[in-house]
Amino acid sequence: MKTYLDCIPCFISQALEAARMSSDNEEVQKKVLLEVMKHLQTVSFDSPPPETSREVHHIIRQITDTEDPYRKVKYQANRTAEKLYPTLKKMVIDANDPLLMAIKLAIVGNVIDFGTTNRFNINDMIKIALKHEHISDEAYRDFVETLDNAKTILYIADNCGEIYFDKLLLEELSARNKEITYVVRANPIINDVTIEDAKTVGIDKIAEVIAGDAGSDRSAPGILLRYASSVFLEKLETYDMVISKGQGNYESLSDVKRKIFFLLVIKCPLVARDVKEDVGKLVLKVKK
Amino acid sequence: MKTYLDCIPCFISQALEAARMSSDNEEVQKKVLLEVMKHLQTVSFDSPPPETSREVHHIIRQITDTEDPYRKVKYQANRTAEKLYPTLKKMVIDANDPLLMAIKLAIVGNVIDFGTTNRFNINDMIKIALKHEHISDEAYRDFVETLDNAKTILYIADNCGEIYFDKLLLEELSARNKEITYVVRANPIINDVTIEDAKTVGIDKIAEVIAGDAGSDRSAPGILLRYASSVFLEKLETYDMVISKGQGNYESLSDVKRKIFFLLVIKCPLVARDVKEDVGKLVLKVKK
Repeated sequence: MKTYLDCIPCFISQALEAARMSSDNEEVQKKVLLEVMKHLQTVSFDSPPPETSREVHHIIRQITDTEDPYRKVKYQANRTAEKLYPTLKKMVIDANDPLLMAIKLAIVGNVIDFGTTNRFNINDMIKIALKHEHISDEAYRDFVETLDNAKTILYIADNCGEIYFDKLLLEELSARNKEITYVVRANPIINDVTIEDAKTVGIDKIAEVIAGDAGSDRSAPGILLRYASSVFLEKLETYDMVISKGQGNYESLSDVKRKIFFLLVIKCPLVARDVKEDVGKLVLKVKK
Repeated sequence: MKTYLDCIPCFISQALEAARMSSDNEEVQKKVLLEVMKHLQTVSFDSPPPETSREVHHIIRQITDTEDPYRKVKYQANRTAEKLYPTLKKMVIDANDPLLMAIKLAIVGNVIDFGTTNRFNINDMIKIALKHEHISDEAYRDFVETLDNAKTILYIADNCGEIYFDKLLLEELSARNKEITYVVRANPIINDVTIEDAKTVGIDKIAEVIAGDAGSDRSAPGILLRYASSVFLEKLETYDMVISKGQGNYESLSDVKRKIFFLLVIKCPLVARDVKEDVGKLVLKVKK
């Protein structure tokens, strides 16, 4: 997905949010805004938004001298989701179709996100997930069929907190004796999952955990092929099934020439237009 | 009210909106955004937001070569409100307290606004106005008492569409034999009322209509004392009662040393903090 003019005010709002998480000094926050606006004069609108977001967050880290502005909110998101996990696990076990419930909850988990300006209430979203059918029968049938025929699964992670919701689905996949690789960011970027998070949550017991990007400022809130790790690129080509979480990965991978199952909550009107769904919708989108 | 860092993404969103109203050419829209971001590097955060907004819209008009980007939406807002007017007039006539109803509706009219990113539904707001009491007894008593003792009233207008809601209140004031001056912008700025609008609506039959600013790019979406017309400044000092509509005028006049009755819908979290009310609230705020 390309970058739209509408992304510009959004990048700036996000920069202000990150600056405030990094420093209480209003002069520092102001400097971040001014530098980001200066940088935005030069960006390419042909790149996907996570490319510019990567650059914006590089500026923020430099000016605020903070390696990981979102450390605290990531910790809190993980703790909140950890407490929810036993309830969610019971929901999956008790469901008529545990796989479908695990998919729905994995999408619901994508509500937990500090990288977009629209916020959603997680408990409300769980209720919505239980009440209505958001996943088309066709997309779900395709998911099940692809899964049945797959030995290897590449699962591209998105956010902290959400990782506990991923765990539910990973456990369902693992119970079907699949070889799973869970793809995270090499370095902290916004609230995205890193290897440290995956280990804390115990994902490394269910799946192989790899960094999708090649590290040192190549981490973006969506996997950019030009900065991808070689191990990721190899698995993206050879693995039987690819599952991708969240908007950022959708933005950066939606034009890739291979079948991908995108699980996401639509948080912005531009992604909504691209996916052909409404903002706020829980989506399983198959792109071939 | 000073300008906050949060105003920056809002200025940019507004610039994009105005650019799109002026030109379908994405390159022109992009140029507007880049120039606005360049200009925002230099603005003073000690000025009220309408000061920067004035500069931003000057850039937009220059780049898009459009004198009045909001002409069409202003026309539509006026037409919509004109159709509502007979119903609203009946609401005032039938009310137990017609003055209170006219004040409430004058505030409701402030919902019609293209200068802020939050949008509200006008019919919903009318329902809200009828259902609940939003105006504190104390503020209303103060309004009535000041009105009873006033011979001259300065009424500072805000937006198109809203002007028909102003008319209801102006008629109530006029019925009490007050000498009223209705203050508009000298030149088009966003969707604000100009002399042309006031005449079309027939406000000049009820009140003297003057421009609050000295014209030629001094018009801002809130009266700035440094650009005010001498006739406005004289009346601001000598008139018995001052009524000000909308957020923009609140932002630019809230620190002026005289008693002003501000009638507005709270549309942004920073104004909300300043007024000590929530976003979405209909407010009669007295500042002394």
